[in-house]
Amino acid sequence: MTERVVLAYSGGLDTSVAIPYLAEQIGAEVIAVAVDVGQGGEDMNVIRQRALDCGAVESEVIDARDEFAADFCLPAMRANALYMDRYPLVSALSRPLIVKHLVAAAKKYGGTVVSHGCTGKGNDQVRFEVGIGALAPDLKVIAPARDFAWTRDKAIALAEEKGLPIDVTHKSPYSIDQNLWGRAVETGFLEDIWNAPIEDLYSYTSNPAEPRDADEVVITFDRGVPVAIDGETVTPLQAVTELNRRAGAQGVGRLDMVEDRLVGIKSREVYEAPGAIALITAHQELENVTVERDVARFKKGVDQRWGELVYDGLWFSPLKAALDAFIDETQQHVSGEVRLTLHGGRAVVTGRRSEASLYDFNMATYDTGDTFDQSLAKGFVQLWGLPSRMAAARDARLGDQS
Amino acid sequence: MTERVVLAYSGGLDTSVAIPYLAEQIGAEVIAVAVDVGQGGEDMNVIRQRALDCGAVESEVIDARDEFAADFCLPAMRANALYMDRYPLVSALSRPLIVKHLVAAAKKYGGTVVSHGCTGKGNDQVRFEVGIGALAPDLKVIAPARDFAWTRDKAIALAEEKGLPIDVTHKSPYSIDQNLWGRAVETGFLEDIWNAPIEDLYSYTSNPAEPRDADEVVITFDRGVPVAIDGETVTPLQAVTELNRRAGAQGVGRLDMVEDRLVGIKSREVYEAPGAIALITAHQELENVTVERDVARFKKGVDQRWGELVYDGLWFSPLKAALDAFIDETQQHVSGEVRLTLHGGRAVVTGRRSEASLYDFNMATYDTGDTFDQSLAKGFVQLWGLPSRMAAARDARLGDQS
Amino acid sequence: MTERVVLAYSGGLDTSVAIPYLAEQIGAEVIAVAVDVGQGGEDMNVIRQRALDCGAVESEVIDARDEFAADFCLPAMRANALYMDRYPLVSALSRPLIVKHLVAAAKKYGGTVVSHGCTGKGNDQVRFEVGIGALAPDLKVIAPARDFAWTRDKAIALAEEKGLPIDVTHKSPYSIDQNLWGRAVETGFLEDIWNAPIEDLYSYTSNPAEPRDADEVVITFDRGVPVAIDGETVTPLQAVTELNRRAGAQGVGRLDMVEDRLVGIKSREVYEAPGAIALITAHQELENVTVERDVARFKKGVDQRWGELVYDGLWFSPLKAALDAFIDETQQHVSGEVRLTLHGGRAVVTGRRSEASLYDFNMATYDTGDTFDQSLAKGFVQLWGLPSRMAAARDARLGDQS
Amino acid sequence: MTERVVLAYSGGLDTSVAIPYLAEQIGAEVIAVAVDVGQGGEDMNVIRQRALDCGAVESEVIDARDEFAADFCLPAMRANALYMDRYPLVSALSRPLIVKHLVAAAKKYGGTVVSHGCTGKGNDQVRFEVGIGALAPDLKVIAPARDFAWTRDKAIALAEEKGLPIDVTHKSPYSIDQNLWGRAVETGFLEDIWNAPIEDLYSYTSNPAEPRDADEVVITFDRGVPVAIDGETVTPLQAVTELNRRAGAQGVGRLDMVEDRLVGIKSREVYEAPGAIALITAHQELENVTVERDVARFKKGVDQRWGELVYDGLWFSPLKAALDAFIDETQQHVSGEVRLTLHGGRAVVTGRRSEASLYDFNMATYDTGDTFDQSLAKGFVQLWGLPSRMAAARDARLGDQS
Repeated sequence: MTERVVLAYSGGLDTSVAIPYLAEQIGAEVIAVAVDVGQGGEDMNVIRQRALDCGAVESEVIDARDEFAADFCLPAMRANALYMDRYPLVSALSRPLIVKHLVAAAKKYGGTVVSHGCTGKGNDQVRFEVGIGALAPDLKVIAPARDFAWTRDKAIALAEEKGLPIDVTHKSPYSIDQNLWGRAVETGFLEDIWNAPIEDLYSYTSNPAEPRDADEVVITFDRGVPVAIDGETVTPLQAVTELNRRAGAQGVGRLDMVEDRLVGIKSREVYEAPGAIALITAHQELENVTVERDVARFKKGVDQRWGELVYDGLWFSPLKAALDAFIDETQQHVSGEVRLTLHGGRAVVTGRRSEASLYDFNMATYDTGDTFDQSLAKGFVQLWGLPSRMAAARDARLGDQS
Repeated sequence: MTERVVLAYSGGLDTSVAIPYLAEQIGAEVIAVAVDVGQGGEDMNVIRQRALDCGAVESEVIDARDEFAADFCLPAMRANALYMDRYPLVSALSRPLIVKHLVAAAKKYGGTVVSHGCTGKGNDQVRFEVGIGALAPDLKVIAPARDFAWTRDKAIALAEEKGLPIDVTHKSPYSIDQNLWGRAVETGFLEDIWNAPIEDLYSYTSNPAEPRDADEVVITFDRGVPVAIDGETVTPLQAVTELNRRAGAQGVGRLDMVEDRLVGIKSREVYEAPGAIALITAHQELENVTVERDVARFKKGVDQRWGELVYDGLWFSPLKAALDAFIDETQQHVSGEVRLTLHGGRAVVTGRRSEASLYDFNMATYDTGDTFDQSLAKGFVQLWGLPSRMAAARDARLGDQS
Repeated sequence: MTERVVLAYSGGLDTSVAIPYLAEQIGAEVIAVAVDVGQGGEDMNVIRQRALDCGAVESEVIDARDEFAADFCLPAMRANALYMDRYPLVSALSRPLIVKHLVAAAKKYGGTVVSHGCTGKGNDQVRFEVGIGALAPDLKVIAPARDFAWTRDKAIALAEEKGLPIDVTHKSPYSIDQNLWGRAVETGFLEDIWNAPIEDLYSYTSNPAEPRDADEVVITFDRGVPVAIDGETVTPLQAVTELNRRAGAQGVGRLDMVEDRLVGIKSREVYEAPGAIALITAHQELENVTVERDVARFKKGVDQRWGELVYDGLWFSPLKAALDAFIDETQQHVSGEVRLTLHGGRAVVTGRRSEASLYDFNMATYDTGDTFDQSLAKGFVQLWGLPSRMAAARDARLGDQS
Repeated sequence: MTERVVLAYSGGLDTSVAIPYLAEQIGAEVIAVAVDVGQGGEDMNVIRQRALDCGAVESEVIDARDEFAADFCLPAMRANALYMDRYPLVSALSRPLIVKHLVAAAKKYGGTVVSHGCTGKGNDQVRFEVGIGALAPDLKVIAPARDFAWTRDKAIALAEEKGLPIDVTHKSPYSIDQNLWGRAVETGFLEDIWNAPIEDLYSYTSNPAEPRDADEVVITFDRGVPVAIDGETVTPLQAVTELNRRAGAQGVGRLDMVEDRLVGIKSREVYEAPGAIALITAHQELENVTVERDVARFKKGVDQRWGELVYDGLWFSPLKAALDAFIDETQQHVSGEVRLTLHGGRAVVTGRRSEASLYDFNMATYDTGDTFDQSLAKGFVQLWGLPSRMAAARDARLGDQS
C-alpha cells in the first residue's frame, strides 16, 4: 500500500514544493492540512485548492481559531507567559495546535509520516516533532527543508520544473509567522543587532509615535478568562481579536529582542502582539488584586517555567500538565474588571475592581476607619529580622567584614 | 549620663516634632541625622539648622548621593529588581543606606537609641529596624508615630505648643517618598483602586501623552555598570541623574499598581522612576546579548528573590550577600552599548552591541555564511523529546486521557 | 451570656490547669476538646472525664486517626515532605487537624474563644493561630502559657490550689509530642547540641544497633496512596500503623538535627518516625520509576516549599492548595510496588515494579534487544553543549580566566 | 603532518583496542592519557606501558587525586550534591577533570582529536564532549564505541587480531566506574529493576547487616572544607580516603536507584560512596548550625541545580561558576566539628559544635536563662498569618469551598 504523508501546509513556496517532492522522494501520497490559527492573509479555500493543484491527494482546511484562542492563548495569558520577560510565545503556541490536527488527519487518512516546513536551526522543528512524538510516537517525521538541505533557489527551481501554481517572482524580504496571538518578523538587516527596526516591518500595530487620541477599555475577567470588553460579552476569540484591533491601533505590543533559542543560539526577533500584551497586562494586575502574596511569589517561578517549557516545544509534556494544575487553582478568584488606557504604544492599567479583591480599603487606608492594628508590628518586625540579626551578631563576634 | 537618641530626620513635621518629644519622653538628647539620597526639595543646610532650632543637640547632614547610586541603585539594576515585575524598589533601597549612616552616627555621638518616623503598617519600619538590628543589635529603636500612636493633628498640636519653626498650615494632600531612584506617592483618592491617577501626582515625569520629539540615548555598560551616556563618561550618580532627566522628560517610568506589603496587606501605589526604568530596560537587553541561556534562566529566580528580600527589609542579610555573589559573577561580561529610544512614556531598545556578545551572526543568519550545522538538530530533537514521548506512550498504554 | 472557650485539651498538666484558670480569668465556660491523632498513651475516655473533673462544661473526644492518616500524613508523603531534608513534619501535620476540630466545636458549642497550650517561642502557636485565623477569623485566641507567662511551677501550684485530679509529682524529663506520623522529644541535656541522644529518649523505635533479623516488606501504591502491604489491602491508617510497627522494630526513622524554627531561632530536635520514613522512602523511589524527569526536577522545589509552608503553619493557605493541585497531577501514575528491606535503622529499597513504569528495559539494556538509537546522541550532545561552548569561546577571546 | 589523537585511556579492553583502531581508521598517532582519580586497581605504570604496547606513540599517566579531592569532590560536598536526592555524582565529577588533562595533553603533544570510550546512551559522552567543547572548541572528538557501533565481541576480535596484550578471557559480569568519590556498578540482572542487588556487587563497603562495633568519628570543617579527622589534620584527599575506609568498613553509602539520564531514559544504578555520604551528612548538619535560615532554604534550590548541571555534563558552564559564587559566599562560616557514628550502614550525626554557631542556647532553652522575648510572638503570628486569613475570609464571603 502506498505510504501517506500528512503535510503541514501553509500555501507558501516551501510547503507547496514539498508536495510533489515528497511524492517523488518517498513514493507517497500527500495529504495537505492547513490550520487557520488566525494568520489572516489568503482565503483558506484558495490554499486548500492550491495543495490539490500541486498534487496533494487530499487537502483539508481547519478553522481552529476558537480552539486556539480558548485552549492555547488564554492558558498562556493565565501563565502571564512572556519568554525572557518579553515574548508572548506567538509561534510556540500555534505549533502544538497544528500538531494536534496533523495527528488527527494522519489517523483519519491513514498517514504514517508527518511533514513540516521548518529548518534545522529554529525552535519550530522541535515543537512539531516533540509534539508529534508525544501524541503519536509511531508517526515518522520528514522536514524536507532541513533533512534535504533545501535552499530557496532550489525550491524555486523545483516549482518551475514542476510547473506549480506558485508565484515565485515576488520575494518578500521578510520571514513572517503570524497568528491570532501575534506576529514574528525576521529579516536580513535585523541580523545586525545594532540596526533598529523600521516601520515597514509592522502589520498588526500602528506607529505608536503618531499622535492620536487615547482609547480606554474595560476588560472583565471570570476565573482568569476575559469574558467581556466594555461590558459586551465576548468569546475568547473575540476578546483577542478585539484587543488586537484596539491595542494595535495604539501601537501597543511591539517587541524587539535578542532571544535564546532552544537549539543553543541567540537570535534577534521582532514581534508585535497587541492583544496579547494588553490582556497579559490586565491579567497581571487583576492577579495583584486577587491573588494572595505567597501564591503570587511562587507563581512567578511557575509562570517562568511554563513559558520556557512551551517555548522549548514541551506543550504536550507531563510538567506542562502539572504546572497547569497549579495555575488553574490560582485562577479561581481572578475575577473582576480592569480598566486600561491604550495609547502611544502603552497599555496602562488605571483601575481595577473585584468582588474577590484581597485589597481591603479599611486595612490600607491611612485615614479614619483604619482597622490595621499597628501594635502588632513591633513583634512582627523583631522576629522577622531575628535570623539576620543573629547572623550579623555572629559575624561581628568573629570579626567578619562581609 | 543622659541617653542620646539618633533620629532619622527629614525636616518635615513628624520628625521635627519628634525632637522635643523624644527629649521629654525619655529624657534624652537628640542627634538629628539627615541623609541626602537625592530627594531634592529643601536645601540640606536649612534642614540641618531646623533640627537645631527644634532642640537637637547635634544635627548632621550627609551627602550620600554618590554612595546611594553606586552601592544601592546599581546593584538593584544588576538584579533587574522590579518587585512584582513592576516596582524598582525606590524607598526600599534608601532605607538601608540611611540605617548605615544612623548607626555610624550612633557610634560617633554615643547614641544608644535610634528613632525613625515610620508608622506601623508600612514596610519602612521593617527596613529600618531589621537593618539596625543587623548592624547594631544593641541599639534600641523608637518609632514615635507607631509606638505612641501619633496622628497628624497631635503632631501639629505639639509643634504649636512647642513653638517649633515648622509651617503646619500647608498640608499636602500627598504622602511622598522620593530619592534618586524614584518617587512614591500615596494619597486618599488612590485608596479607591478603581480611581485613575491624575497628572498632578507626578513630579519626575512629564505627561507621556503630550506630543513631543523622541529622544535617543546610547548607554555604555562595563561589567554591569553604566559608564557612559552618548559617549560621555559618567559616574553612577550622573548616569541615574541624567537618565531621570531625559527619560522623565519623555514620561518614562510611571507605575500604578496594587502591591503586597510585607506586613500582610495589599496597598495601592503610584510611582515614577524614569532613570531606573530606562537603565533596567537597557541592562536586561544587554544581558540578553551577553549572558548564557542557563545563567539567564536561573538568574530570573535570583533576581526575583533579591527584589523580594530588599523589599522585605533584608538588605543586610546573609542571603542578600550570597545572591549578590551570584549576580556579580554573571555580570563580568555585561559590557557593551545599548541604544534606547525614549518617547511617549516608553523606553525601547533599538540596538545593542558588545565585544562580549554571545549573539553570533554566522550562527544566526539564514543567509550565506551560515555556520550552524543543521544535521545536528535531528538527534537533538529526538532526545530532547524522549522523556515526554515515553510518558505519552505510557499514558496511551494505560488509557489515560490527561 | 457567658463566653465559651474551646480548649485544645491534651489531658496533661498545663491544659488541665487552664480549665479553671480560663474560667476565672475571663469568666468563661470551658469546652475541652481532645483529638486523637494516634498519640497513644492514656485512654481517651479517661482524658474526657478528667476535663470535666477539672471544671469543663463540655468535654469532647474525637477519634481523628483515619482522617489524620488519609488527609494529612499521606499528602505529606506525596510531597516527600522532609523539612530541611530530614524532619517529616510530625507536629506540623497534626496542628491543622486539631484546629479544624476546635473550630467545629466552637461552632457546635457557641464558643467565641479558642485556647491552646503552646508557648511563645515554638512553631505550634503559629500553626494553631494562623489556622484558626484562616478557618474562623472571628474567633479570639488565648494561649495561657504564652500570654500569662506561665511556668511549670506556677501550673503545679495552681493545680494543687484547685485540687485538680492531676498527678504533679511525676515529672518526666522529656517534653514530647507524638502522633501517628512520629514523635518529637525535647529535653534539657539535648540543648547542648554536642550531646548525643540516649536510648531512653526513644519509644517508637528499637535500638537499631542491636542485632536482629531483617524484615522485608512490599508496599503497593495506587496513585500515590499506599493501598496494600505484603499484598494485604490496608487503609491509610493501617498502612502507617503497620509500618510504624515493622520499621520501628528495626530502628528505622530516628532523627537528630538542629532545625530552623519559624520564630527565627535554631533549636535541637530529636524525632522518631519509622512509618513516615519507610513510606516516604518507598514513595520517592516509585516516583523515580514513574514520574517524568522534568516533572521530578520541578517537583523537588514544589515539595520543598510544601514542607516549609506546612512547617510554617500555613496549611490552610492558598499556596498550599495550589501546590497540592500540582502534586495531585503528578501522582496519577505513581502506582506499583516497592520492596523495602527494613534493618539496622535503614529502610532500603531493593526492588520496584509498575505497570506505569517509565523505565524501559529495552532502552536501558546494554545487552541484545537494545532499542536506543545511539546515532542520535552526537547531535544532541553538540547542541546541548552549544551555549556553554560559545560562552567559553567568548571568554577565551576576551582573555578571561574565570 | 600526521594527525594526533589524545585518547582517554583506562587500560581496559575498549580503550586498548581503540589505540590501533584509531591509528588505522584515521591514520593518526595515538597519545594515551590515563588519569588517576583514585580508581585503584592496576598500577598506573603498568597501564602506561600497556598503551605503548598497544601502539601509542606517547603514554602519560597523571596522578590527579589531590586535585580531584580538592577541586571536584569537595565542591560537590559543599553543594550537598545528591542527584535525585541520592547519587553523589561519582562519575560526573571525574569526567571534567579528565577532560581538563586531555585538553592539556592535546596542547602539549599537538593533538587535534580527542577520543573517549563512552557509548551513545550514557551520560559520560555528554560530560566528555561538552567539557572538551568548552575548554578547547577546536578539538574534534571521536568515540569509537559509539561512532563505529562497537560491540564487546568486535573489540575482542580486534584485540586478538592485533595481538594486543589484553586478557580477553576474563569477562567481569559488571560494568564498573570507580574513583575516590565512589563507585558505580551496572550489570545485566540489575536491569530487571525488581531484582535486589547482591553482596558480590560491592567493593568499597562491607555488608552493613553484619554485626560489628560502631565507629565514631569527629570531622572538623573550616569554611566548608574538612581539615581534620579526630583532631588529626588532613588534606582533602586524606579526608575522603580515610572516610571511605572507615565509613566503608561500616557499610555506609550503598545506593540503589532508578535514575533519569540526561539522554532521556531511566536507568537502574547501584552505587557505593561511603566517604562521600559521610562527608555530606556531616556538612549538611554543620550548615544547619551555622547557616542562616533564608540562606539555607534558598541554597537547597542552588544545590539541586548544581547537582543537575554537573550530572548533565555542564561542569564548565557559566551557570556552574555563578552557582559556585553563591555557594562560596555561604560557606564562610561553615566551620566547626561534627561527630558521626558510623554503624550498620548508617552515618548518623550525634553532636556538632562551632564558634560560628547560630544556635543560641539562651534563646532555645526552656530552662532558666531563656532570653527569648515571648511577648513578641503574638504580633508576629498575627501578621504572619494575615494574608492567609484575608484570603480565607474572602473565600468564605464568596461561598468558596476550596
